[in-house]
Amino acid sequence: MRLGIDLGGTAIKSGMVDETGQVHFAETTSTNTASGREAVLDALTEACKSQLKHEDVPSIGIGIPGFVDVENGILVRSANLPLDDTPIAEILSKRLGKAVYLENDANCALAGEIFAGCGREASDFLMVTVGTGVGGGICLNKKIYRGVDGRAGEFGHMTVVMHGRPCPCTRIGCWEQYASVTALCRMTKEAADEFPDSLLAQNIRETGVVNGRTAFEAAKNGCATAGTVLEHYSENLAVGLNSLITIFRPERIVLAGAIFKEGLPFLQRIQKYCLEPQYLMLSTLNGQAGLIGAALLGATR
Amino acid sequence: MRLGIDLGGTAIKSGMVDETGQVHFAETTSTNTASGREAVLDALTEACKSQLKHEDVPSIGIGIPGFVDVENGILVRSANLPLDDTPIAEILSKRLGKAVYLENDANCALAGEIFAGCGREASDFLMVTVGTGVGGGICLNKKIYRGVDGRAGEFGHMTVVMHGRPCPCTRIGCWEQYASVTALCRMTKEAADEFPDSLLAQNIRETGVVNGRTAFEAAKNGCATAGTVLEHYSENLAVGLNSLITIFRPERIVLAGAIFKEGLPFLQRIQKYCLEPQYLMLSTLNGQAGLIGAALLGATR
Repeated sequence: MRLGIDLGGTAIKSGMVDETGQVHFAETTSTNTASGREAVLDALTEACKSQLKHEDVPSIGIGIPGFVDVENGILVRSANLPLDDTPIAEILSKRLGKAVYLENDANCALAGEIFAGCGREASDFLMVTVGTGVGGGICLNKKIYRGVDGRAGEFGHMTVVMHGRPCPCTRIGCWEQYASVTALCRMTKEAADEFPDSLLAQNIRETGVVNGRTAFEAAKNGCATAGTVLEHYSENLAVGLNSLITIFRPERIVLAGAIFKEGLPFLQRIQKYCLEPQYLMLSTLNGQAGLIGAALLGATR
Repeated sequence: MRLGIDLGGTAIKSGMVDETGQVHFAETTSTNTASGREAVLDALTEACKSQLKHEDVPSIGIGIPGFVDVENGILVRSANLPLDDTPIAEILSKRLGKAVYLENDANCALAGEIFAGCGREASDFLMVTVGTGVGGGICLNKKIYRGVDGRAGEFGHMTVVMHGRPCPCTRIGCWEQYASVTALCRMTKEAADEFPDSLLAQNIRETGVVNGRTAFEAAKNGCATAGTVLEHYSENLAVGLNSLITIFRPERIVLAGAIFKEGLPFLQRIQKYCLEPQYLMLSTLNGQAGLIGAALLGATR
């Protein structure tokens, strides 16, 4: 077994991964991001120590959202963690007496899919991750394709609406502006504002919350306004997926991200707008692809 | 040397290609498409015979626009040639006493670039071909990436305008609808209709012709209307190129097609709209990439 860590801005997911890719002792703790650098390093250390009580391991792998200097185990830059320019591998290695490896979280998730998920049935596939933004990864011939500078697979920033919505990336009309959970929340709010008598609007007034589940919940309770939001959103997702299928003709596109907990009914909504729906599949790894891929880091270096 | 043929709907380009990728005795003859199947086969035979007078060769390779059964040397389907379900390799081989190989023309062009063009300086690159439509090819690790069914790289059919112009492919808002030479001709006509006093409109009235050069010629003579057409068109091209750079992070994108005879000024117009203009280059193969790649077929099988 090896220890895998998925270090996010909010939560640290940890688990022991066996040689078949199964996760044992999965645990989720708080990252303590608001308390700053040392607090995050302590939370990370504790998460590892808690797992090491279960079993001794030859190495620890950590997936991190940001630009990682893989060779030296340094987090160079991260939008969501107060750890810029931190030699995390060295610090953790000293504290825990283990080899520690770092990698970008998207690459970890793709590695997890290659080893234990989509890769079991395909050698050329894409991963599309839908969350705050839309990310992705390219697996060709069972290996991660990284491009000239390691940044290949930023599917969220392909243009789907020329002269459309501006994106913080400086481009216009990026897919992410229409297909991310952030976009779904915006569409949900807009629909509620436009139809204040809808169940969707009522729910939002009562709870004071709009998130990625809001439209799904109202739609399940028969709200037509929410249903329309989901149709538009599913079409937005499909537009980019169609383009990726056209470009790559991959064996599969595996969809990842918490929003896909909505399961088969949501997948089918998206597939309605796809010319070749058979290429799409939901990740079977329960959001643990990143953790699995991180654990593998020590085995492949 | 080997004989390479680029069989188009209008013209047959032929030439002898040496081991360095240089083309000798380049010739262009008519395909005789309007005269039907036998006439085209005869034109093809004559083009080969004319070349074989120069030198004896071990094999002949033919690039064809359409769906090719490579293994059996059969053209299965072609939109531009009256040769559906024709065992071209067998027929030509009998007539000429040589091994004859067939391949899709886009793959030939990419093979030509890999061997003698862009591939000399890059191992991961894309080719984008702009003509009646927008096509392309993907070279990864110096090899053609074909995808699950051999159709990877149809860049012209990625969506750049959600809910935009319908495309004969049944999709909506395909890049090809905005970035092909066909699209440029449409934009040229529309601008001439809107500004009947422009030099562009005058030229069209005088010549009765609109083609891919019309706007370039008027712009060179100072026509602002034509200049605006070219700006919009260049932006349309850049939108898709930007997406491809984001997705692949390739070492290069090589631009091919007769329109790029407009050269550096046109490239620079496009680059103005690119976030990373340094990735773009014009093909250096003078429209002979397909012929070069076709000639190579015999050497690589």
